[in-house]
Parts: sequence; structure tokens; C-alpha cells
Amino acid sequence: MKLATYSDGTKDGQLWVVSRDLSCAIPAMVAPTLIAALEDWDRLKPALLALSDRLNAGEEPIATAFDPSRCMAPLPRAPGWLDGSAFLTHGRLMDQAFGTPPIPDMETIPLVYQGASDDFRGPMGDVDFPAEGDMIDMEGEFGVILGPVPMGASVTEAEAAIRLLVQINDWSLRAFGPREMRTGFGFVQAKPATAFAPLAITPDEIGTLWQDGRVHLRLHVWVNGREVGRAQGAEMHFSFGQIIAHVARTRRLSAGTIMGSGTVSNMDRAAGSSCLSEIRVIEKIERGAPVTPFLSFGDRVRMEARLPDGTAPFGTLDQRVVRA
Amino acid sequence: MKLATYSDGTKDGQLWVVSRDLSCAIPAMVAPTLIAALEDWDRLKPALLALSDRLNAGEEPIATAFDPSRCMAPLPRAPGWLDGSAFLTHGRLMDQAFGTPPIPDMETIPLVYQGASDDFRGPMGDVDFPAEGDMIDMEGEFGVILGPVPMGASVTEAEAAIRLLVQINDWSLRAFGPREMRTGFGFVQAKPATAFAPLAITPDEIGTLWQDGRVHLRLHVWVNGREVGRAQGAEMHFSFGQIIAHVARTRRLSAGTIMGSGTVSNMDRAAGSSCLSEIRVIEKIERGAPVTPFLSFGDRVRMEARLPDGTAPFGTLDQRVVRA
Repeated sequence: MKLATYSDGTKDGQLWVVSRDLSCAIPAMVAPTLIAALEDWDRLKPALLALSDRLNAGEEPIATAFDPSRCMAPLPRAPGWLDGSAFLTHGRLMDQAFGTPPIPDMETIPLVYQGASDDFRGPMGDVDFPAEGDMIDMEGEFGVILGPVPMGASVTEAEAAIRLLVQINDWSLRAFGPREMRTGFGFVQAKPATAFAPLAITPDEIGTLWQDGRVHLRLHVWVNGREVGRAQGAEMHFSFGQIIAHVARTRRLSAGTIMGSGTVSNMDRAAGSSCLSEIRVIEKIERGAPVTPFLSFGDRVRMEARLPDGTAPFGTLDQRVVRA
Repeated sequence: MKLATYSDGTKDGQLWVVSRDLSCAIPAMVAPTLIAALEDWDRLKPALLALSDRLNAGEEPIATAFDPSRCMAPLPRAPGWLDGSAFLTHGRLMDQAFGTPPIPDMETIPLVYQGASDDFRGPMGDVDFPAEGDMIDMEGEFGVILGPVPMGASVTEAEAAIRLLVQINDWSLRAFGPREMRTGFGFVQAKPATAFAPLAITPDEIGTLWQDGRVHLRLHVWVNGREVGRAQGAEMHFSFGQIIAHVARTRRLSAGTIMGSGTVSNMDRAAGSSCLSEIRVIEKIERGAPVTPFLSFGDRVRMEARLPDGTAPFGTLDQRVVRA
């Protein structure tokens, strides 16, 4: 099942069910919003699935063409947004990019920061930033939307709470990152509002490519039409279940909490990068200095995870950077 | 005006207006919840103030005795919870307690972490933690609840967005703090659910003791009936307006966002401490080793900010630590 949220002037938008081939969509009816669906998932999921099945079978005459330009983030605001950094290649490159000391225990303890969850960005159109000098960068990621997770949940229990998969651009401002890391208090100015691809999908939508608590898809990333990354999500060092259980060690998580993978990044340099900081630090290592600039106003960033058949199960993130 | 939220089985509870002397209360009627009031503040505030005035004048016959045991946090869940560390004495003592390097720019750039905002604790009763070995500690703080703040707001604009003042116990687990700071990603396991005193109050409730964007009240803290702290909020190095403007530099803040002061802490050691880690590190400095233990199951923590006349404008936080 694929779900999207159309903008309707409210903070939570309106929940729609979208066909598997992204051709058509229909209001979810049984649940006005995705957060309402998540808060009563066991009761509402069967009706949503039935609607999805009828839509895929062409049996919903009132369905209309799916319009990604109407989409907000699938969950426009969430009870929490916790972003991991579970691709070790990304972590190691960022240590070098930021000139910060190697992060302790990176291979044995999941690394997670808590970000703003009240003002997510949708998949298309303009994203406004205060200044080019803030070193505007993207971070292509996968994520999961959760049901309730009790404090002390095991990895198995944590993974069982995964309701939906999402695709993310964790917009980042590199002018602030290194200093905020050195304070130890985590990212605030370095992490403006996060953007989401239009569709939140149940794991079965990617079949066996949802495996071991990881999304086994390549995430294609383009800047101004040039493909800079096609990294494989399977290389995630910690599973989503492990990251969730780490966070739930001392807290309860509410239904609708979103957990991110961190920037998708591979050992194999032929896979490119899902953020510009990686590209720049690799240029520095290989050529002595970074060549690729951070983003300027007017630049476009496009991201799309693809199934082996070339289709995009989350739809497409396609945004233009503009001045606030 | 003083506002409280009574538990009614919902996540947001029911908004009540409480009399200035805390003797009686009445349902807010014009706004079902505090978040609803904050999202439409300019329109609803006059009616809430009128109700508060009638209640204080004894002109609301259906008012009942105010019952803090029915209280949730004034805002049981919020769009965001960002906690500063604006008392330099606390910051300097914690560097020593954690054995972490001095935080860069602490005197010139506000220090803020983003915490969980979906599961706040009310002011009374039991608070459950997974293990005594996690080194359970309290942090007595002041905080503000905001209206919407645009990205790039000035300090003056930020301060103008302050709607209500609150009193906070930012429960902390010291077994995780130093390691999480060293990762640079901020606090996750170290910061379980945060607790709030029963009343959120408009700044005029403390008259001229709300000044320069700071709460000029002493915060009294007791552990098992013994007073350990009476630190003065006036010593806050950054104002709330400065902390808010720092966070809003690269993001919009939604109505209902809560901003904390960090642990109230004074240069004058006679003021005691609002957390046990400070007490322990002072013992270490003065006597060579910490003597005061962290909290055990069964211990009680009580916190109360007081006006010069001895009354408690936020009511009282009074909780017992128990096993989850």
C-alpha cells in the first residue's frame, strides 16, 4: 500500500491512497490524516488495504490521476524525528570533512540525533534558506514511520513497530555542523526542515528488498540534472530495528515517530554520494582540494530510490533551492 | 493568567483556567486544549483572560477546588522541545562532572539541544526509569511556551513570541550523557521524558520578576525532603529571546514550541544546586570524592519556584522515582 498526503490548508493535510503504479489516487476516507491512521493502525489498516487493492484493480471509479505537486510530506508533522547515521562510510567521510575527531563506538552503538518534527517539507517546489554562505547541502536517506514503541523494546519488538517506509532529504547547513558537533549538544542550526518523497509505503511494496530491517534499494541523486549518487541502502551498518531499540532504551516512542537511516553511503566510490560534503572530501583526498561547490540559489536537487525494474516506489523528491 | 491541563484520557488533556491563589479552577471552555489556544492565541486570549479575571474575583460559581493531582504537563505534547544551557555555572561544572572538554563559545553562542516533545510527564506521582545504574538525576529549569516564530526572527521578535512561562524538571540519566556528548550528536538516551510543574502562566503573573527575558525567581529543590537548591533564575547568561533567535536562525518554530533555560545554577555556592551532578562535582572538588548519590527507586524530588511572598506561581513538581 502506498499513501500520500495532499495539501488542504491544514497542518496535517489529507490522506490519500495511491495506486502501486502511481497512476491514480483516492481519498483514504476511513482516516482523514496519516497521523490518525497511525494512531489507530490495527483497526484502520484492513480498510485502507482493501481500498488500495480496489484502486490497484481499477475498481475505484472516483479515482483521479495522482498529482505529486499537491503532496506535502506523507506525515507533514510528526511526534518525533530521530535521524541515525548508520552508514559507516558516511560517518568516516564526515569526520574528515568536518575535521572532528573520530566518533567513539561508531561501529557498535547507533548514532542518532533528534531533529525538528513540526515543519517537514513536501517533495516538490522551492525550499527556502537564509543564506548561500550557510553551505547548503542535501542528505539522501531512507526512513521508517513507527507505531507505538514501549520503553525497553527489543530489536525484534522495535522492528515489528515499523509501519511504513519513506525516502528523505535531510537538508543540512554545513557552516554550522562542525561547531555544533564540538559542543556535544547535537545539531540545531545545522539542520533546517527535512523533506520527504511523496509516498509512504508498506514494506511489502518492495517485497524482498525490505530485508534485515534495511531498504535494499539504490538511491539515485541528481544535482542540476547530473547524477551524483546511486548508493545502495543494503550497506546500512545498523538495522532500523537496532536504531529504534537504541532510542527506546530510556523512552517511549509515540505512533508516528520517524526514524532515519542517515545519509546512504557505500564503500564503493563508483556509487557516488548522497550529499555534497562527501563528494567534496573525496575530492580533497584525491585531488588535494574540493572542487564541487555547495548548493546555490536556483540549484535543483532530485532524489529517487529505484526498484530493479526502474520504477520509483516512493515517487520523486525534486526541489529547487531559493532565498528565504 | 494561570493555565493547567487536566487528564481526561486524551493525549492533549483538557485546558483549565486556575485562580491566581491556586484555590480554584474552571474548564477553559473557549479552547478545549492548550495547543488549540496557542494556535489561535490572539483570538482566544481575551476570552481566557476574561474568564481568569472572573475566577480571581470569585464570580465563577461553577469553579471547583484546583486539584494538582489531576494535572498533566500544561502542554502534554508539543511541536518541539528545545532546551538551552544558559547558566554558565552549570555548564562549567558539568564539563568537570563529565570529564568532557570545555564547550567552545559557551559565553557567546547559546547552547541548545532538541529533546523528545511527544510524551511529557505531569507534575506529580511516580516517574518510571529502567535502571538505577543509569544514574538518575534531575535538572530544575524554567521554560517558555511560544507562539509561531518566523525563520530569522530578531531577539526582540523572538521575545515577543513568548506566550507563557513554565517550570521544568528535565530528568537526566548521567550514565549516557558524557558518551553522547562525545559523539557530537547530542542527547538521546541521556534525556528521558521531561516533567512540568502544573501551571503555565502569562509573564504578568510574576510582574517585574519577568525581566530582560529571564525569570527572576528562586527555584527551590528538595530531595527526600532536604532542600538542596535555591538558585536564582536571574543569573541566566542568555535571555530566552536570545536562545529562541539562535534556534530560529535557520528554521520556523510552530506555536506551542517549548524552550528551556537549562539547569538553574548560580556562582554563589550558598544557592545550592538544581541537579545532583553539580552537587557531586562540587563535593569532588572540595572533598576529593562525590558523597551524594544519584537517585534511587523510592526517592522523591520536589521543585518549586517562589515569589518573594513565599507563594509558588507554577505550583509544585513533586515526583517519586520508581522502577519501570
